[in-house]
Amino acid sequence: MRMSKQFDQLISGLAARARAAVRALASGERGRRDQALRAAAAAIRAAANPILQANDSDMQAGADRGLGPALLDRLRLDEARLEAMAAGLEAIAALPDPVERVLADWTRPNGLNIRRIAVPIGVIGVIYESRPNVTADAAGLCLKSGNAVILRGGSEAVASNRAIHSAVEEGLASAGLDPHLVQLLPTQDHAAVGSLLRAHGQVDMVVPRGGKRLVARVQADARVPVLAHLDGNNHLYLHPSADPEMAVAVVANAKMRRPGICGALETLLIDAGALDQLSAIVDRLVELGCELRGDEQLCELDARIGPAAESDWETEFLDAILALKVVAGPEQALDHIARFGSGHTDGILAGDDALAAEFLARLDSAIAVHNASTQFADGGEFGFGAEIGIATGRLHARGPVGVEQLTTFQYRVLGSGQTRP
Amino acid sequence: MRMSKQFDQLISGLAARARAAVRALASGERGRRDQALRAAAAAIRAAANPILQANDSDMQAGADRGLGPALLDRLRLDEARLEAMAAGLEAIAALPDPVERVLADWTRPNGLNIRRIAVPIGVIGVIYESRPNVTADAAGLCLKSGNAVILRGGSEAVASNRAIHSAVEEGLASAGLDPHLVQLLPTQDHAAVGSLLRAHGQVDMVVPRGGKRLVARVQADARVPVLAHLDGNNHLYLHPSADPEMAVAVVANAKMRRPGICGALETLLIDAGALDQLSAIVDRLVELGCELRGDEQLCELDARIGPAAESDWETEFLDAILALKVVAGPEQALDHIARFGSGHTDGILAGDDALAAEFLARLDSAIAVHNASTQFADGGEFGFGAEIGIATGRLHARGPVGVEQLTTFQYRVLGSGQTRP
Repeated sequence: MRMSKQFDQLISGLAARARAAVRALASGERGRRDQALRAAAAAIRAAANPILQANDSDMQAGADRGLGPALLDRLRLDEARLEAMAAGLEAIAALPDPVERVLADWTRPNGLNIRRIAVPIGVIGVIYESRPNVTADAAGLCLKSGNAVILRGGSEAVASNRAIHSAVEEGLASAGLDPHLVQLLPTQDHAAVGSLLRAHGQVDMVVPRGGKRLVARVQADARVPVLAHLDGNNHLYLHPSADPEMAVAVVANAKMRRPGICGALETLLIDAGALDQLSAIVDRLVELGCELRGDEQLCELDARIGPAAESDWETEFLDAILALKVVAGPEQALDHIARFGSGHTDGILAGDDALAAEFLARLDSAIAVHNASTQFADGGEFGFGAEIGIATGRLHARGPVGVEQLTTFQYRVLGSGQTRP
Repeated sequence: MRMSKQFDQLISGLAARARAAVRALASGERGRRDQALRAAAAAIRAAANPILQANDSDMQAGADRGLGPALLDRLRLDEARLEAMAAGLEAIAALPDPVERVLADWTRPNGLNIRRIAVPIGVIGVIYESRPNVTADAAGLCLKSGNAVILRGGSEAVASNRAIHSAVEEGLASAGLDPHLVQLLPTQDHAAVGSLLRAHGQVDMVVPRGGKRLVARVQADARVPVLAHLDGNNHLYLHPSADPEMAVAVVANAKMRRPGICGALETLLIDAGALDQLSAIVDRLVELGCELRGDEQLCELDARIGPAAESDWETEFLDAILALKVVAGPEQALDHIARFGSGHTDGILAGDDALAAEFLARLDSAIAVHNASTQFADGGEFGFGAEIGIATGRLHARGPVGVEQLTTFQYRVLGSGQTRP
């Protein structure tokens, strides 16, 4: 218990300095945020050597601890990855300012002018795993949106994260901004993460960036709002009115472009009236090396389809595996998605626009797609410039979360002496 | 533990029926929601006798249990209050439909059309205290916004709530809607409230309506998002450029119109350069029966001002008491509000518009007011038609929450076969 109190105090201190930095930022000239982002990019380029050296020591320690090749690749930095990190900060600096946007503006009969204005959320915690580039990305997105961020990266990337963080601090300082806008948790102790997640009222939101285990743990423990999605068990429903060539191209892209991302297709629901499109879709998927698991009817129709287990309907494969099922029509497709979907990205392939519009309106998903790949579920593809994640919550942040989505709003009420009768 | 499991199952059942009802509502003709609201209003009028009889029995039981006169008054229904309830439902029916509004609409270079569309939040729990009219109000607001609601009223109003709920069910049925859109928790056992608050993934949001003790308990126990505010410790800063007559009228209204509502003024911060306005403000407040508690300087300036304790700065009096303090300028006013404010409603009285705009932008409050009474912090006064409460959270719902704020959004992505490169 003494341990936990010690970390509670640590987090309180970090959060208080972050809050003060946010308040000072609100009073300062807003262009300085972009200036700091560009300066941080320059500082990362200038510090390429120390950053890569720090990364070498992380890689060495990781190899000694027996990290697998996939994890080591995620951890690894090189000139190209450093340049991408710096360019990413410059791209964020070039985005329009999401703060102080007028979201609505109306005047009441008594002359009161009421405006709904975008303002920063406040103090954001970001908890992430091995990729050290998240240190720069998260700092950039939070700073651009006028927030302060407390970063907690993976233990295996400690030295890399510290080196990148130093460059970001340099950027802040050279623009005359408080370096406490971007703070790195000074300990890797798990109890400090627990304190961060419980810092209700001090930390306004936590963003977990990483695998399902990390997200689940954060969601279970957090007393502060969490911006995240746990699963991307995404569906497409193939309606008989769909264009057959389009269906092949979209399904293949949705599943196989990158099977491991959260926007990847996991189950294809085929209308019983669209089974004539099956073999062309199977041809293409098999050609791309995709394993197919279907219901009984589909297994009988095509020998290349193996039997699906009941658990396959609720599985996010994140791999070159697709579940397929015949449905009697849109109602049954919607029922299946309501039962097994995760509310991330679902959609329809159909030439009938009215039917498709009705189908989208009845999907309870953050992103509803008509005649396009589910892999467009991405902040960059949405035109948000960059994203800190994709959210499946229902309140406020839903879908890709870029700088605009990292703001909340404030009502401004402008009067001329109105008193309430 | 067996008790708790039993109530978990009860809540799961209610939530599943609510979810199914929401899904069915999304597929139905949307005008039926307004039809149901009007039918519910008619049913309340038609059932005036049984509702008033039920209320009599609640009043009798309350008197027997020794409820105080204030509580009994809140519990009491009469013809006028019933009519207000019915008219309230009709007013909600007359509001524009908040569902399916296009919040944003843009097209990407690849031709993808992306829309951000308002959709219902889903299943909402409302926990409230003695006033039985909340049964009709909350049902109306949730139904209008396409949500299902699970209601849990106060034990002292059980019979009244049941009778009102029956009328609402009648309205739903007569419009051909699923009565499970508005469900009343069938038990007053506190363990059932606990189960409701923990029903993460089944209940999408909980709204506590009642005193600070209720809100604090809900916020502490909830695992589902809570829409609420705990305190309304509201401030006005009087700048030397303020119009003196306006200042008197606005301060008097902000404090004394109804001292017990959450938008009432609690502390007036007077600029050292505006002390010439003090005596006129004190004259008016004293005339209205307001007790004044000020810092040392103010006590010396005016004998009608008593000494303020340190705890007064953080107190939401909800009574005819006002705290007053001299500040050196806007910076010190902002510091005071940042330290003691509750993020509800704060503002400035000033003739200098540029200074006032900068002041509002630096307030970290859901509602920021210039030259108007803080008592305008109200959904009706904002033009929202009706409100289910006022939220001081930073995510999504902030400020007065009417039907529009009871929706979230979905991205609709409309393609012509786009695949992601």
